[in-house]
Amino acid sequence: MKICVIGLGLLGGSFALSVKDALDEVEILGVDINPGHSQKALELGIIDKVMTLEEAVPQSSIAVLATPVNIIEKQILTVLDLISPTGVVIDLGSTKENICLAADDHPQRLRYVATHPIAGTENSGPESAFKGLFRNKSMIICDRQKSDPLAYHMIKSIFKDMGMRVSYMNSIEHDKHIAYVSHLSHISSFALGATVLDMEKNEKNIFAMAGSGFSSTVRLAKSSPEMWAPIFEQNADNISLALGSYIEHLQDFKQIIDNKDMIGSTKIMKRVNDIRRVLKGIDIKS
Amino acid sequence: MKICVIGLGLLGGSFALSVKDALDEVEILGVDINPGHSQKALELGIIDKVMTLEEAVPQSSIAVLATPVNIIEKQILTVLDLISPTGVVIDLGSTKENICLAADDHPQRLRYVATHPIAGTENSGPESAFKGLFRNKSMIICDRQKSDPLAYHMIKSIFKDMGMRVSYMNSIEHDKHIAYVSHLSHISSFALGATVLDMEKNEKNIFAMAGSGFSSTVRLAKSSPEMWAPIFEQNADNISLALGSYIEHLQDFKQIIDNKDMIGSTKIMKRVNDIRRVLKGIDIKS
Repeated sequence: MKICVIGLGLLGGSFALSVKDALDEVEILGVDINPGHSQKALELGIIDKVMTLEEAVPQSSIAVLATPVNIIEKQILTVLDLISPTGVVIDLGSTKENICLAADDHPQRLRYVATHPIAGTENSGPESAFKGLFRNKSMIICDRQKSDPLAYHMIKSIFKDMGMRVSYMNSIEHDKHIAYVSHLSHISSFALGATVLDMEKNEKNIFAMAGSGFSSTVRLAKSSPEMWAPIFEQNADNISLALGSYIEHLQDFKQIIDNKDMIGSTKIMKRVNDIRRVLKGIDIKS
Repeated sequence: MKICVIGLGLLGGSFALSVKDALDEVEILGVDINPGHSQKALELGIIDKVMTLEEAVPQSSIAVLATPVNIIEKQILTVLDLISPTGVVIDLGSTKENICLAADDHPQRLRYVATHPIAGTENSGPESAFKGLFRNKSMIICDRQKSDPLAYHMIKSIFKDMGMRVSYMNSIEHDKHIAYVSHLSHISSFALGATVLDMEKNEKNIFAMAGSGFSSTVRLAKSSPEMWAPIFEQNADNISLALGSYIEHLQDFKQIIDNKDMIGSTKIMKRVNDIRRVLKGIDIKS
């Protein structure tokens, strides 16, 4: 079976490695605008051949879009033009609403299964790809009623073979929720990184005291701007709401700090300790 | 050698286990206002005897204050009253300025070495203590010129035997820096947890999509209010500045998101990717 992967970074590369590991007789056709990435992916055995999109898609059983989400939004139409009547197109984008809207009127819409694997690291490029990225992670299939049933059952089955848990959501709800449980976390890390790097200009030794607590909250600030700027742009409205709410909570906390109000801060922290329940759920799933 | 540990939570308990592992013939006298904690610490072999502070300190070579920082600020004077002329008092508090100010005029000030181990987890209580907590972590000794030189050399040597890297700072600079690289991280996690738990009230399924990125940014929101409310109160002025700066960065980011400004967000993220350098330094140290 030929699978073409368009975009050979962390996600596309890891998908290729993972699906080769899960299924027999898979040939990966790699497509990337960056010839350095294609070469690297070939050297690392992530892909079997380098091709253009126009060469690869028509001969593939599955076409996987793993480019930045604003690029996917444009490419989805071209790929749906080119995919065979029995082929399937999926994408790995972190936002879904705009991509689904773009695809909705296409005559081949049934061949598209809108997917989002809740998986990633803060690294990027084909060198960062690894086959275990998706194991025990969630895969969200959006707007499945618009996909051909056999197509999404086949995709679901492949993802399960890759060790993923599959669930369903509509694309509008997806983008609303992911703003809170992923996109906001990335922004919080970037802003924290910015705050502390600013201090470093005057306080050279500031990081001598940084430990694992600091690391865990800024880790995501290593993430790739090429991947995240389009995500923030595509999901701007939902992210703006989430960020507004987060800023309000911080302002409330600042008021409590300024008032040296230990009762107030204890009350908030006790309430938020409930996050233990949530994190236990995430850890059990992983 | 008798060492009394006052406060038998994560830090006090881990210190006891660690020092017993590092040195020969150590007897740990445990002091805690909570009889449940003392009992548990005895059962777990963290301490050898349960005593009151007034019984334990005078007979100890080292007295370790591992209570919340507002309690340490009061207890330091009592403990300096009771320690023998050749004994040493240390504390494990996350803030230093107020504690050092409180101790400064005490006739036995030379017996006090102001210490802060940059180590912890989000868990609490004696059950959470473990002997490896301090291994490969930093220990900051503050205002060492106010301690007896033999006293701080002895303490430094014990911490090195426990696997720690020791460095020096004055207590005012300590509190200023730690506001940015620890206290702010904890507040960012609590506020993020609060933001998402609020959404859960209306969107029961929101956490179905949460992955490791979310977990890493809210992990610290499991931290103990009993430990952190006093820290925020003691270091309020520095934290307020750090938090104000963080909120400004978030507001700038929100503006960029609202403007769907991919160039603007890319610029910030590229700059903050420099955090990779900082985190590599922290990982190498650990």
